[in-house]
Amino acid sequence: MADLWREEWKLLERKLQDRGLDVTAIRTAVANFRCETPSWGYGPSGTRFGVFPQPGEARTIHEKLEDAGECHRLTGVCPTVAVHIPWDKADDYDALKGFAAQQKVRIGAVNPNVFQDLDYKYGSFGHADERVRRKALEHMQECCAIMKSVGSDILSLWFADGTDYPGQADFRERKQRFTECLQATYKMLPAKSRMLIEYKLFEPAFYHTDLADWGMALNFAQKCGENAQVLVDLGHHAQGVNIEHLVAFLIDEKRLGGFHFNNRKYADDDLTCGSTNPYELFLIFAELTAAEAEKSTLPHPIAYMIDQSHNTKNKLEAMIQTVEQVQTAQAKALLVNRKKLKAAQANNDVVGAERCVMEAYNTDVEPLLMSVREQLGAALKPLEIFRLSDYTRKKAEARRGKVAGAGLGVN
Amino acid sequence: MADLWREEWKLLERKLQDRGLDVTAIRTAVANFRCETPSWGYGPSGTRFGVFPQPGEARTIHEKLEDAGECHRLTGVCPTVAVHIPWDKADDYDALKGFAAQQKVRIGAVNPNVFQDLDYKYGSFGHADERVRRKALEHMQECCAIMKSVGSDILSLWFADGTDYPGQADFRERKQRFTECLQATYKMLPAKSRMLIEYKLFEPAFYHTDLADWGMALNFAQKCGENAQVLVDLGHHAQGVNIEHLVAFLIDEKRLGGFHFNNRKYADDDLTCGSTNPYELFLIFAELTAAEAEKSTLPHPIAYMIDQSHNTKNKLEAMIQTVEQVQTAQAKALLVNRKKLKAAQANNDVVGAERCVMEAYNTDVEPLLMSVREQLGAALKPLEIFRLSDYTRKKAEARRGKVAGAGLGVN
Amino acid sequence: MADLWREEWKLLERKLQDRGLDVTAIRTAVANFRCETPSWGYGPSGTRFGVFPQPGEARTIHEKLEDAGECHRLTGVCPTVAVHIPWDKADDYDALKGFAAQQKVRIGAVNPNVFQDLDYKYGSFGHADERVRRKALEHMQECCAIMKSVGSDILSLWFADGTDYPGQADFRERKQRFTECLQATYKMLPAKSRMLIEYKLFEPAFYHTDLADWGMALNFAQKCGENAQVLVDLGHHAQGVNIEHLVAFLIDEKRLGGFHFNNRKYADDDLTCGSTNPYELFLIFAELTAAEAEKSTLPHPIAYMIDQSHNTKNKLEAMIQTVEQVQTAQAKALLVNRKKLKAAQANNDVVGAERCVMEAYNTDVEPLLMSVREQLGAALKPLEIFRLSDYTRKKAEARRGKVAGAGLGVN
Amino acid sequence: MADLWREEWKLLERKLQDRGLDVTAIRTAVANFRCETPSWGYGPSGTRFGVFPQPGEARTIHEKLEDAGECHRLTGVCPTVAVHIPWDKADDYDALKGFAAQQKVRIGAVNPNVFQDLDYKYGSFGHADERVRRKALEHMQECCAIMKSVGSDILSLWFADGTDYPGQADFRERKQRFTECLQATYKMLPAKSRMLIEYKLFEPAFYHTDLADWGMALNFAQKCGENAQVLVDLGHHAQGVNIEHLVAFLIDEKRLGGFHFNNRKYADDDLTCGSTNPYELFLIFAELTAAEAEKSTLPHPIAYMIDQSHNTKNKLEAMIQTVEQVQTAQAKALLVNRKKLKAAQANNDVVGAERCVMEAYNTDVEPLLMSVREQLGAALKPLEIFRLSDYTRKKAEARRGKVAGAGLGVN
Repeated sequence: MADLWREEWKLLERKLQDRGLDVTAIRTAVANFRCETPSWGYGPSGTRFGVFPQPGEARTIHEKLEDAGECHRLTGVCPTVAVHIPWDKADDYDALKGFAAQQKVRIGAVNPNVFQDLDYKYGSFGHADERVRRKALEHMQECCAIMKSVGSDILSLWFADGTDYPGQADFRERKQRFTECLQATYKMLPAKSRMLIEYKLFEPAFYHTDLADWGMALNFAQKCGENAQVLVDLGHHAQGVNIEHLVAFLIDEKRLGGFHFNNRKYADDDLTCGSTNPYELFLIFAELTAAEAEKSTLPHPIAYMIDQSHNTKNKLEAMIQTVEQVQTAQAKALLVNRKKLKAAQANNDVVGAERCVMEAYNTDVEPLLMSVREQLGAALKPLEIFRLSDYTRKKAEARRGKVAGAGLGVN
Repeated sequence: MADLWREEWKLLERKLQDRGLDVTAIRTAVANFRCETPSWGYGPSGTRFGVFPQPGEARTIHEKLEDAGECHRLTGVCPTVAVHIPWDKADDYDALKGFAAQQKVRIGAVNPNVFQDLDYKYGSFGHADERVRRKALEHMQECCAIMKSVGSDILSLWFADGTDYPGQADFRERKQRFTECLQATYKMLPAKSRMLIEYKLFEPAFYHTDLADWGMALNFAQKCGENAQVLVDLGHHAQGVNIEHLVAFLIDEKRLGGFHFNNRKYADDDLTCGSTNPYELFLIFAELTAAEAEKSTLPHPIAYMIDQSHNTKNKLEAMIQTVEQVQTAQAKALLVNRKKLKAAQANNDVVGAERCVMEAYNTDVEPLLMSVREQLGAALKPLEIFRLSDYTRKKAEARRGKVAGAGLGVN
Repeated sequence: MADLWREEWKLLERKLQDRGLDVTAIRTAVANFRCETPSWGYGPSGTRFGVFPQPGEARTIHEKLEDAGECHRLTGVCPTVAVHIPWDKADDYDALKGFAAQQKVRIGAVNPNVFQDLDYKYGSFGHADERVRRKALEHMQECCAIMKSVGSDILSLWFADGTDYPGQADFRERKQRFTECLQATYKMLPAKSRMLIEYKLFEPAFYHTDLADWGMALNFAQKCGENAQVLVDLGHHAQGVNIEHLVAFLIDEKRLGGFHFNNRKYADDDLTCGSTNPYELFLIFAELTAAEAEKSTLPHPIAYMIDQSHNTKNKLEAMIQTVEQVQTAQAKALLVNRKKLKAAQANNDVVGAERCVMEAYNTDVEPLLMSVREQLGAALKPLEIFRLSDYTRKKAEARRGKVAGAGLGVN
Repeated sequence: MADLWREEWKLLERKLQDRGLDVTAIRTAVANFRCETPSWGYGPSGTRFGVFPQPGEARTIHEKLEDAGECHRLTGVCPTVAVHIPWDKADDYDALKGFAAQQKVRIGAVNPNVFQDLDYKYGSFGHADERVRRKALEHMQECCAIMKSVGSDILSLWFADGTDYPGQADFRERKQRFTECLQATYKMLPAKSRMLIEYKLFEPAFYHTDLADWGMALNFAQKCGENAQVLVDLGHHAQGVNIEHLVAFLIDEKRLGGFHFNNRKYADDDLTCGSTNPYELFLIFAELTAAEAEKSTLPHPIAYMIDQSHNTKNKLEAMIQTVEQVQTAQAKALLVNRKKLKAAQANNDVVGAERCVMEAYNTDVEPLLMSVREQLGAALKPLEIFRLSDYTRKKAEARRGKVAGAGLGVN
């Protein structure tokens, strides 16, 4: 097999050249792609019906960073780790930075939590009680301080705010409270950092969510300032919504901040990205790679982050698998022959245009990815290598028993 | 029966007073409510599987205005009629105005059609070909001229623009073309008139729609000017979307222009408004009546319009029935005890707040509506009276055979 | 107010008689309606994002029976309580029966739990490992024994079985295992008892559920025997599914076993029944009351049970409110003039037929319900009375601290 | 390029062998796959908003057969053509058979039409009026006679029956009428032929459809006899339904009759199969190829048929493209390493099992398909060859003007 992929890559390279593609530019884009993993993706998670613990699962921020380090070691493209406060709170953030550095990773986006405390039963920024809103703002202040301590430049906001029943709250009043609190948070941001605003159709609120869709997130971002942008979580839309379209819309508005990668068949299932509809993921990347190839289209780099919750898969396997799936989608998207596509579009040649897209999608990019991974010094087949290793077994031995402060991570 | 409703009304009045409601204000709001009917709702319609003609169906704008006049005569609240150009084109708009006046109605919103002509196969404002966009803009110019001729102050825009397949068009380029064309149209508007921008998730385009949701419609409206507002068609959302929430959001943004009333269980079914989920319709009206009761919240009156497509119901029966259903929802919404509701909301008394809403909804407002209809000089029970009349039979005799220029109306 | 409802009832009675309805038969049907409440509905519940405890919440089966007793005392129509094993396991079921009797309630359906134990991580009846299936069957045996002990005649089956990812399991093998295990369970049933098979589209499994829809549940029931029937949970369908239609289909197949009442706007939200679309609930009851009025249509009485999960509402308030909503739907359904409806249907008079249904729905049945409650010796307004009482306050004092064995109830 | 694919095929063959797959068996299965095209897919179609004619579109059954012949000539796998009666009615079926034979195709499934005639406004088999049901049955008789004349062994049934509003009809009465009429039709079937029963969630009926889902179709099929089977149209499900699961369920019930291939993002969009979610199509084929590989699992061959409606794509291009997409899905499904998959499933190795499936899906099967096409004597790249040909231009010249009797085909 070892030789086969090299032969495949040679043939693929010829084929891409025959198609008129710039293989060097493609390789560069693949090699430059980075994807952040979430600390909470390495720890326990579950559904409301139960949480099934896994042997060797990370219990503390240090163990999560270890696992994130292993993921980065194998994939070569996951140098940063999103943290969730208070789940990942530390007494000494300098020490934490140092520990992360030992694992060859850095702290990435800081994710505040204003939904778990009993005070947030009826909301945080949307809460009717000014004291609860103030408490939430103080938590934001704390998170911004942590950003400075750990050198993070992204504050990533998700709210569970909403209601379960008609009448429960006044929509417009809640909107006005959200506007005020988001503006106040925006002012707390460390210099040169961004605030990403996530939206979600429903859950845990079952009648309305204050930030229900991209339109609301965009509206709030516009009211804050240009460093407030929209975060797209792939599992947070109504059935049937064309995500790649709204991604393009947000790009054009200069308000696409980043992604929470995952997949779903029904609701916010938090499954492995690309596991339900890999073509959709590819189409989203087709918008992203097109914009990234243009100069000056994007005011900031798009923050690619994973946000999943694996109940039946081994956590670290799932994370590495996800990185492979996301890389596959990106690599395929880079193979779209833009020139040919533009020509077909100009002629309303529907079949011709679709073929440009399909041709890229149908290409097996595994040899390309392997070739780039070799260049990056990563494992040629990260998931396979990991599964052959004894990492899980070793950690299962080392990480026995409960450790205080290990939270359940979902959003 | 004749006496019964008066006794019921007396009891209801007492009950409402006991609840602390201002019955006079409620009656006034019910009496002032107006709802526009669409010319195309009186003519033939169908699904892609076929159109089943009905005896006596209106074939021309004149016959449609006759039917709209009958609807207004019975309900007393439908004095205006939306027209669709070119389906309702006339040689002499003064004469048409006069004919409408004879039926005791006026021309309301003007609805351009940039989807039926073969040139629009691949779009209108989003079309890649500048000549098609220019043609669409010329049609807008024509419609604005008609607005002046007939004294209409609403240009109501719906676009079939979109694509069927990935790759077929460039989302961002289409967005930019739409922005330009909408801005150009905005400049054509007669003085003191408004432009309403409708959105729709899908159909007839099956992969993406250029104006897919309220967020896109709002975005374009903001780029045009303050007299550009969003039109909410109740059948144009993804499953699960909380419509009353986004209605409130648009109210707060001062961009809620109006409604196309109808209902759906699945897609854009264009069923009688209130026939699938009357509670949802009531909840939408609960947002509207709350805003209308506040001074200065709304920059313009909200345009209430019906847009339905009845394939199995008698057209005029369906229209009158719709008006009754919409009036019922509005009247019930007016019965929400706002003071009590605010108190429950302030205490996060979820059950208490929901009961305020449910109490209003569960009230039988038929006696109230009959009492107001009596005051307006309308039929006490418009649908029942119509069904007892020989209007349909007479028209079935009078309107035999085809008439040139009668279009199929759907959107 | 006290007098007002009696006057309203007098008028309503006259109106119903004018409509040609048999008021005595309607009153009898309303008075005979019974609805089972679930033990787990009185205890803590939540979403995967957290569980917010409520003061006074029941912690043990005894406290749950106390609360169920209070619900029955006020409503007069909730004499039975569904239990969940092992959450409600007791050392002495005779004593438990006695305790229930003191609260004036009885044990109703027995609900096994084959999803919470770690062994069930990959399923129960569908599990690849024969030992897990045997364990699940032993639990069924235990539940059937409990049925005998407590005099229950319903075994109510819900399975979390399913998979999260394509390939994870073989659909047909799982189906065959389910068939075998369900047949084995059927044979364990105590004499004269029934087995109800619930279905659910998704959650907690996110790719496939072994019992995904009514068609699968029916198929398995047919393979077991005539006392195996389908249980319809109102929140377990795909968006857009016409529930009243499949209810009618199951009635005609003589396989409608019962209901789990709740409501949802999105997924399995487990909201108060009738809170999202009360008209849909009414339409379901319109099928049920029609079948119940016919002799010999139903082989067994339909088991009406509540299954909800209230995170923001006071548990007991929510339960009583639910009973009121369900009674309202049933009472309205009884007001449909069947004779008039049949005539309109025979003539394809769509508007006429819909009016028969709408007329019943739009009637305010509160006075009828109050009159029947008076006759039953229940509270005239159960929810209002409960909210005025100090039950919650007293229990909040009495039920401080944790009690071992209190489970989290959701399905 | 010509040489490249051969090199790719050599490498692919080695890779498949390395994976332990039986390449000869795979090639045989690919070579034996056949897919029926529908006569109506070559003629005009549209949405309710309009039908945009295409130059050269087939207008008569003869022109449709010509186009079907061209499709078969290029792909080599489409030797049969489904017909729709009365759209494809002929005076002399022997002559029609002969004409088809000249195009190297045969008539396949016969599709009755009991929805277009005005008599069917309120249904066919479900209609309240016995005369309408008799008329529909007579049409079935006619279609069975045509089956004999043309040598077809499949009667393919789709019904538009349903209602638009609650109350419009009695669900159970309609069900009973359907049972009777389907049983009567079953008895009319020519010897050794099958009756396939299609289902659909909604459209053109918008409240309920008599055959709403697979469960209903299966139920009716069981009531008819073993040669009545279920037809799965990929666009006829509620959002979120796991189609591959119910396909497996139907296989296990020995009631999977065949497919109508297409795709959708929203409702019954009738888009090119595989254009929205090609992975889902592959997963469906993974169930089919597994069953086809087992002896005795399937009582009859599964009937693979296309049913699409192309409004913006060139009809014949779209048809050929569809065949390629379906072949791609089938070929990839054949690459699943069943033995490895079984082992992973037995160990609940979720990631391992998914990888077996994904590995097959991610393989580029184009060289395999080309190699098999070469063997079949078909075009190596059918769509590309067709687009380079002047077929469309020539037909556009030859097929000018209207021809009587050309119907609009959709279902």
